[in-house]
Amino acid sequence: MIIIGELINTSRKAISEAVDTRDADTIKKIALEQAEAGAHYIDVNCGNKLDDEVEIMKWLVSTVQEAVDTPLCIDSPNPKALEAGLSLVKHGQAMINSITDEHGRFAAVLPLVLKYKTKVIALCMSDRGMPHTAGDRMQVVQSLHTKLTEAGVPEDDIYFDPLIKPISVVAGAGAEVLDTIKLIRQQYPHVHFACGLSNVSFGLPNRKMLNRLFVVQTMTLGMDGYILNPTDKGMMGFIYAAQALLGHDEFCGNYLMAYRQGLLG
Amino acid sequence: MIIIGELINTSRKAISEAVDTRDADTIKKIALEQAEAGAHYIDVNCGNKLDDEVEIMKWLVSTVQEAVDTPLCIDSPNPKALEAGLSLVKHGQAMINSITDEHGRFAAVLPLVLKYKTKVIALCMSDRGMPHTAGDRMQVVQSLHTKLTEAGVPEDDIYFDPLIKPISVVAGAGAEVLDTIKLIRQQYPHVHFACGLSNVSFGLPNRKMLNRLFVVQTMTLGMDGYILNPTDKGMMGFIYAAQALLGHDEFCGNYLMAYRQGLLG
Repeated sequence: MIIIGELINTSRKAISEAVDTRDADTIKKIALEQAEAGAHYIDVNCGNKLDDEVEIMKWLVSTVQEAVDTPLCIDSPNPKALEAGLSLVKHGQAMINSITDEHGRFAAVLPLVLKYKTKVIALCMSDRGMPHTAGDRMQVVQSLHTKLTEAGVPEDDIYFDPLIKPISVVAGAGAEVLDTIKLIRQQYPHVHFACGLSNVSFGLPNRKMLNRLFVVQTMTLGMDGYILNPTDKGMMGFIYAAQALLGHDEFCGNYLMAYRQGLLG
Repeated sequence: MIIIGELINTSRKAISEAVDTRDADTIKKIALEQAEAGAHYIDVNCGNKLDDEVEIMKWLVSTVQEAVDTPLCIDSPNPKALEAGLSLVKHGQAMINSITDEHGRFAAVLPLVLKYKTKVIALCMSDRGMPHTAGDRMQVVQSLHTKLTEAGVPEDDIYFDPLIKPISVVAGAGAEVLDTIKLIRQQYPHVHFACGLSNVSFGLPNRKMLNRLFVVQTMTLGMDGYILNPTDKGMMGFIYAAQALLGHDEFCGNYLMAYRQGLLG
């Protein structure tokens, strides 16, 4: 199970401002807080800074690595920004967020996965557009799995993102994803998962609760990686509780530790 | 999905006292509160009143039925108390809690299921003692399923209780149950489930949270009946949220209604 800390993202106002003023202390502080809260990777995303994304990615990657030695998840739709970030990575095996089965994106990102020997998040999206059913998603999963493994990417480095839509907009959007996780687990027992889940609750009240419960539901079916805010104590408490109930926490040791740390409300 | 309200049980102090003084108003109030909170069945259990369980069961069943027309779940280890309760049932199809695969108990309870055409909770327990693995449980499930259906009990009237042990005592106790639910759902798609889950958290801090999350996890694998306190707003909120995420709540209508009723915290 891995947690990818999502907070260093320039779509968040505090990060955008810290980037604009090159306020390294704020960035380092948020990186450190996420690492201390249990993040296994720190996501770095400045994709909305279109004019100088490459320069900002370099500055962010260098700055974060001054604060923590947690591996990074380099997150951008722009292959140039991905490479700028990857070329500066100093600690451990980086992760790329994300490759897709769209022809252009796959062709641009695969060489980076191979050159930098990264882990890679494989988003269930293709040139046929957004998937609707679990069957649509499995077509993309099968295609990505074949192409990535044939190119030499180990299954252990592949993290599928089932592509999550809001249940308020698409009836059955949650069930589609749950079914997809079940099918991926059956067909490819050695791959992993990673994605953010907060889209699922878009447009509904009490989004935090829905997001947390969807983490618990997806964990129950075998999902093993999340992009989320690791400083959200309620979320982390649910994850520790769910792990204990799933039998992934011997003698409930981590659950009891989380309780003593005040994560369980 | 059915909720069986668990509150009318003489192991609870308030109920024991109300029974001892034949305080019908208290019993009726608690029956009504559970029905209004969404209980589909009201459980009636006076199993710890060993000396006059039969008389108390009659009084409780009559009293509850003066307050609500919700069907009853007659709950006792004593077949005489079961029959005393069943003989007075006026509203709808009753449920028996429970039959097991222990020779004596099966032989005593099956005739009541057939005579009163009840639904029945089938507990995964046999003369071989407590089950340990999901495989142990499935042996009992298969045996009970065969005997009950051969006796003419419709699959739709069978509610399996996978028998839940504390995760603090038995490592993997949660996983055993989750695996059992998965297997029952695969092999017997038309049967149902019903059980209380609070054993799972015995001996751990923050039991409410563990119990609620275990409901969400078991629902995700297809469990569709619970014996619980329907006036626990936090629990009911989680159930509404989980149903919406599972795609069992068209347009999230019930979730939004639960939000307006203040069930979602």
